[in-house]
Amino acid sequence: MAKVNEHYLKLQAGYLFPEIGRRVRAFCEANSDADVIKMGIGDVTQPLPAAVIRAMHDAVDELANVETFKGYGPETGYSFLREAIAENDFAERGVEIDPEEIFISDGSKSDSSNLVEVFGADNKIAVFDPVYPVYVDTNVMVGRTGPALDSGRYEGLVYLPLTEETGFQPPLPKEKVDLIYLCNPNNPTGTVASKKTLQKWVDYAREHEAVIFYDAAYEAFISEDDMPHSIYEIPGAKDVAIELRSFSKTAGFTGTRCAFTVVPRQLTGTTSDGQSQALHPLWYRRHSTKSNGVSYPIQRGAAAIYTPDGKQQVRKLVDFYLENARLLREGMSDAGFTVYGGVNAPYVWLKTPTGLSSWEFFDLLLEKSNIVGTPGSGFGAAGEGFFRLSAFSSRENTVEAIARIQKSVAAKV
Amino acid sequence: MAKVNEHYLKLQAGYLFPEIGRRVRAFCEANSDADVIKMGIGDVTQPLPAAVIRAMHDAVDELANVETFKGYGPETGYSFLREAIAENDFAERGVEIDPEEIFISDGSKSDSSNLVEVFGADNKIAVFDPVYPVYVDTNVMVGRTGPALDSGRYEGLVYLPLTEETGFQPPLPKEKVDLIYLCNPNNPTGTVASKKTLQKWVDYAREHEAVIFYDAAYEAFISEDDMPHSIYEIPGAKDVAIELRSFSKTAGFTGTRCAFTVVPRQLTGTTSDGQSQALHPLWYRRHSTKSNGVSYPIQRGAAAIYTPDGKQQVRKLVDFYLENARLLREGMSDAGFTVYGGVNAPYVWLKTPTGLSSWEFFDLLLEKSNIVGTPGSGFGAAGEGFFRLSAFSSRENTVEAIARIQKSVAAKV
Repeated sequence: MAKVNEHYLKLQAGYLFPEIGRRVRAFCEANSDADVIKMGIGDVTQPLPAAVIRAMHDAVDELANVETFKGYGPETGYSFLREAIAENDFAERGVEIDPEEIFISDGSKSDSSNLVEVFGADNKIAVFDPVYPVYVDTNVMVGRTGPALDSGRYEGLVYLPLTEETGFQPPLPKEKVDLIYLCNPNNPTGTVASKKTLQKWVDYAREHEAVIFYDAAYEAFISEDDMPHSIYEIPGAKDVAIELRSFSKTAGFTGTRCAFTVVPRQLTGTTSDGQSQALHPLWYRRHSTKSNGVSYPIQRGAAAIYTPDGKQQVRKLVDFYLENARLLREGMSDAGFTVYGGVNAPYVWLKTPTGLSSWEFFDLLLEKSNIVGTPGSGFGAAGEGFFRLSAFSSRENTVEAIARIQKSVAAKV
Repeated sequence: MAKVNEHYLKLQAGYLFPEIGRRVRAFCEANSDADVIKMGIGDVTQPLPAAVIRAMHDAVDELANVETFKGYGPETGYSFLREAIAENDFAERGVEIDPEEIFISDGSKSDSSNLVEVFGADNKIAVFDPVYPVYVDTNVMVGRTGPALDSGRYEGLVYLPLTEETGFQPPLPKEKVDLIYLCNPNNPTGTVASKKTLQKWVDYAREHEAVIFYDAAYEAFISEDDMPHSIYEIPGAKDVAIELRSFSKTAGFTGTRCAFTVVPRQLTGTTSDGQSQALHPLWYRRHSTKSNGVSYPIQRGAAAIYTPDGKQQVRKLVDFYLENARLLREGMSDAGFTVYGGVNAPYVWLKTPTGLSSWEFFDLLLEKSNIVGTPGSGFGAAGEGFFRLSAFSSRENTVEAIARIQKSVAAKV
């Protein structure tokens, strides 16, 4: 008799974005002439950089010819891409990463999901609240939590609240934890951690032999000079941190799919008899056993991001969204809202008007301004009373959205 | 303290293909002028069909334009591809599969690996011997086996031997099993199961409420008229089977990466309190939580396989490899070898000369003919005394390989 994995049955049915979709559909059916602007899900809108397009065309042509055809590639990614990453994303910032420590994948969502597999069942996990739901759900699936509580939290996880009082930088855990998900620049709050803050986490991890999953999917949006772009800029981090990066938001790859994970060779976990065990060979074994790597033309496209043309085009793309973020931030502030984020991240995190919950503000904004955002409480209990607006829109829609809100929604009710 | 997943430490270090690579490198270093022909790993050699190339170029162009740009796609695959599959791979053979039952992925290796996640820890697993190592290793990784034994087998798995006496069709398990990996056409033996044989498996699964993972990655190579192409051609199979298909071998996608899995809605597993639980929503939850789907241009390329041009080009590609297989089969038979497979599969499975183990024959063939094949024992204990030759070569190399073997390697020693 085939037994199912019952941990899946603990998962909360109502995932955030399907619920948003349901409400938007209902609104549109009742208001068929409404011109709805979507600033909810963080999906890019601008075309791929020309250098990427050209590289992908060239790679497709290679597949058309018996002399240049590519079959199975290296499971962990082609050297041309891993070397470009090591050089441009790390060496240029003074961080030494061996290309063999870089694993190419089809996305950070997959990577952050799959990483849980090389760790044992009996680890204590810390996540921020609000949080990217994938971190939580994938731990539920493998049985590292108890059932869901009424708050939407799961028994057994340690939640670290991101609050206004601390500038959305969480406190260190009071109890000892083993694995820490650290998303920086942060989704959903749009805030960023300084070197000092990251050093605090690295020190904690070193002291407690914990491992940090450092999700830097929004790294490209860091615009302030003194902010760290990689956790490996922090002394001691290579002993305790895995870094995840993605081309999704950086270069518009949400539908093209390419990302990578860095697992330093010196990073270790522990076996039950107290032996130290390097994580690099375990992750390598996982990658090579369960995957045949990323499509060749896609890896060529990703590598083009690091050419001189590619770099310039990516910079322009990121600046475009950052300008949207600035407009949103200032526009909402002018309208009387308290706003956070939007400087080093493509998200603006605003306080809902007094007395309105996140979902009530969602409904109000949809009703009055025909704008879709994301309720903060959808990312976790501590997100209640906040709301996320995404800068991944066209300029026209961004400007129009601000005008509509300024006209019809009061920041205080 | 971060605890590692210690099940990984049970994995045997020497995976088959790295060991082959090591021996070939050593031989080439000692014999730098040798013209080595590789017929080991099953990787395609011929370019992608023209229709696929065209579709991929068009899709890349869509990504270059703001009006046609694609961001996140559906996690389970675009409808245009799922509908083409339902129509061409199933409806045309009289099998009704809802496109929503089809899940697009980046490969059958990933799918067969990931499927284990939606099943509980306490299932009894049956695999064939010889076997595609991924089925075994991924179960070791999640802790469904004991340690490795001296035979190379793992404690706790049920191995069903594929022997010459039974035409490489395994016996039904003597003990009750819950999950069964069934690779048909079979890798590595190159043999295929008749409708009658598959019916026996479906009946077994229905009787014992087991689930069959039916891996049909080599389906396109079935050339005999009366053989089933899908397990769903067998009455009752939709209640008990998940089918995996791949574009890797069919259309030369080993480096391009696209595949799919069918999970019928009516397929169920069981919870610990004896309730029936549909597997479709669990697999959907896994797919949508852990993945953002397959790259858009790749899905467009895959869909082009089902156009009239694409179908013709794919047929030609498959026929090319099948002709290599026929030449290999007949050539080796003429040389006095006992050969199997190679009619409905791109692999020829031959008996090593009396007194030579699989690895001894590997070394002999490399030494005398400079040809690389795959030792049968590398796929499992019951593969000892057999050897796999792959038809995924150029015509020239196939013909040359046969000539060399006929000239310098005796079938009997």
